Amino acid sequence: MPSNSKFSYIHHEIVPVENAFLHVRDLSIQRGYGIFDFFKIHDGHPYFLDDYLDRFYNSAAIMHLTVPHTREELKSVIYTLIEKNDIAESGIKMILTGGYSEDGYQPAEPNLIITQHSLTLPGEDQIKNGVKIITHEYGRDLASAKTINYSIGIWLINKVKESKAMDVLYHQHGIVSEFPRCNLFIVRKDNTIVTPAHHVLHGITRKNILKLAAKRYRAEEAIVTLDDICQAKEAFLTSTTKRIVPIVQINETQIGNGKPGEVSLSLLKDLIALEDADYKAKVF
Amino acid sequence: MPSNSKFSYIHHEIVPVENAFLHVRDLSIQRGYGIFDFFKIHDGHPYFLDDYLDRFYNSAAIMHLTVPHTREELKSVIYTLIEKNDIAESGIKMILTGGYSEDGYQPAEPNLIITQHSLTLPGEDQIKNGVKIITHEYGRDLASAKTINYSIGIWLINKVKESKAMDVLYHQHGIVSEFPRCNLFIVRKDNTIVTPAHHVLHGITRKNILKLAAKRYRAEEAIVTLDDICQAKEAFLTSTTKRIVPIVQINETQIGNGKPGEVSLSLLKDLIALEDADYKAKVF
Repeated sequence: MPSNSKFSYIHHEIVPVENAFLHVRDLSIQRGYGIFDFFKIHDGHPYFLDDYLDRFYNSAAIMHLTVPHTREELKSVIYTLIEKNDIAESGIKMILTGGYSEDGYQPAEPNLIITQHSLTLPGEDQIKNGVKIITHEYGRDLASAKTINYSIGIWLINKVKESKAMDVLYHQHGIVSEFPRCNLFIVRKDNTIVTPAHHVLHGITRKNILKLAAKRYRAEEAIVTLDDICQAKEAFLTSTTKRIVPIVQINETQIGNGKPGEVSLSLLKDLIALEDADYKAKVF
Repeated sequence: MPSNSKFSYIHHEIVPVENAFLHVRDLSIQRGYGIFDFFKIHDGHPYFLDDYLDRFYNSAAIMHLTVPHTREELKSVIYTLIEKNDIAESGIKMILTGGYSEDGYQPAEPNLIITQHSLTLPGEDQIKNGVKIITHEYGRDLASAKTINYSIGIWLINKVKESKAMDVLYHQHGIVSEFPRCNLFIVRKDNTIVTPAHHVLHGITRKNILKLAAKRYRAEEAIVTLDDICQAKEAFLTSTTKRIVPIVQINETQIGNGKPGEVSLSLLKDLIALEDADYKAKVF
């Protein structure tokens, strides 16, 4: 990733990023076994940090991995890294791997790696014009854990590019779940806001949008089908980095009037305000 | 893995094994993206090397990764490593990762790692008494590619141990496919030898057993159900390291008379003879 940061955390110490290595015995390299999480930094402040740490510890528990630090120790490492790297707008990634396995299969003491990166935000045109998505029949393993397994998402990169789409939505027998790195929302014609309930990663932005939407609309987690999306008034994807990106086309079908909808854009304003409030609450 | 070898190959050179590192930007660590293969060495000779190289290049092609060497270059690296490490009985693992990704998602120039290891062969008691297996509903993504994604297999390790089983067999709606690292065979009451046809990795040992079985029995790739296994006269698993291990129990159901069957054991003899012939053909 664009590594304009100077320092990373690995093997229990902060080292120059160019020295952040794992021996090939690590179970992430041997067997793709590990979990991670990622959160945004604004002006030295991590947005919604406790939510991301909750999910990180939960992913580790699901995959039978032990985070080698208490929550307070982990926070202190994170804040030290933020201070040393001093990048106002950035993201922090925490990876916890299966560790240096003796036999290349059994997990050992996990390796924890923390790196900081610049952010690639969605282009203004994506917000202004909305994006196209395509679909693929697939369901992530152990979807509630944020594992490092992105084999299918990465395998589909060329198909997404060839389709001039921004992303690919997973579904099983027409019931949709999530994107490789984003959650899906639709706005029904009656202004009910719905996100798939099952077989999804519980995104922190997804959680925030459900909370914000409930203030002004009916908001629910439910079963969403491909047909529901085609019939929807609006659709959008959410992620930590992308916040909200309006979806105006799924495969060859236009969604709503083919333009970003006002509900989507008003929720984006609300989300930015919520981030701002989270920042002010900690800083002032 | 038990690394009693002195040297590994990484970043286009042979280095002391303790220096075989990847930077954390590698896509195997970031996204579990990579493929691999593994073959056995006897007295400096790799068994069935061309079959394993065929599969390695095929896995790379399926996952849109380019092996940075021609087949002849790769063979020459392998033989140099075998000579330098000088371990009579061992295994060689080749891993090809998504490389040092700029954005932590898009594959870059792949990293190729080749390591040599001692082998953990199945215990005599496993051959003599046979083993128990359990089952789990799951299907590997892109099963014909030998990817490094073993999230579910490793996640199930504790369940296998608690069940006092040797391994876990994947099935979808009762149609079985494979084990995390082995193929399945059954011997029907009419002595037909069957291995699951679809959604499996095409094991080199699987291929050899099909060939050997066809000489003396009816042998086929077909759909195999959980019930077929319960009704079978014999069952066994195959892998490069394990060769053939008789299966005498699936979950709580005994298979056949609960003892390793003569067909399974005769095919094990044939396989050992085939390995010996492959060795002699190259060496003498």
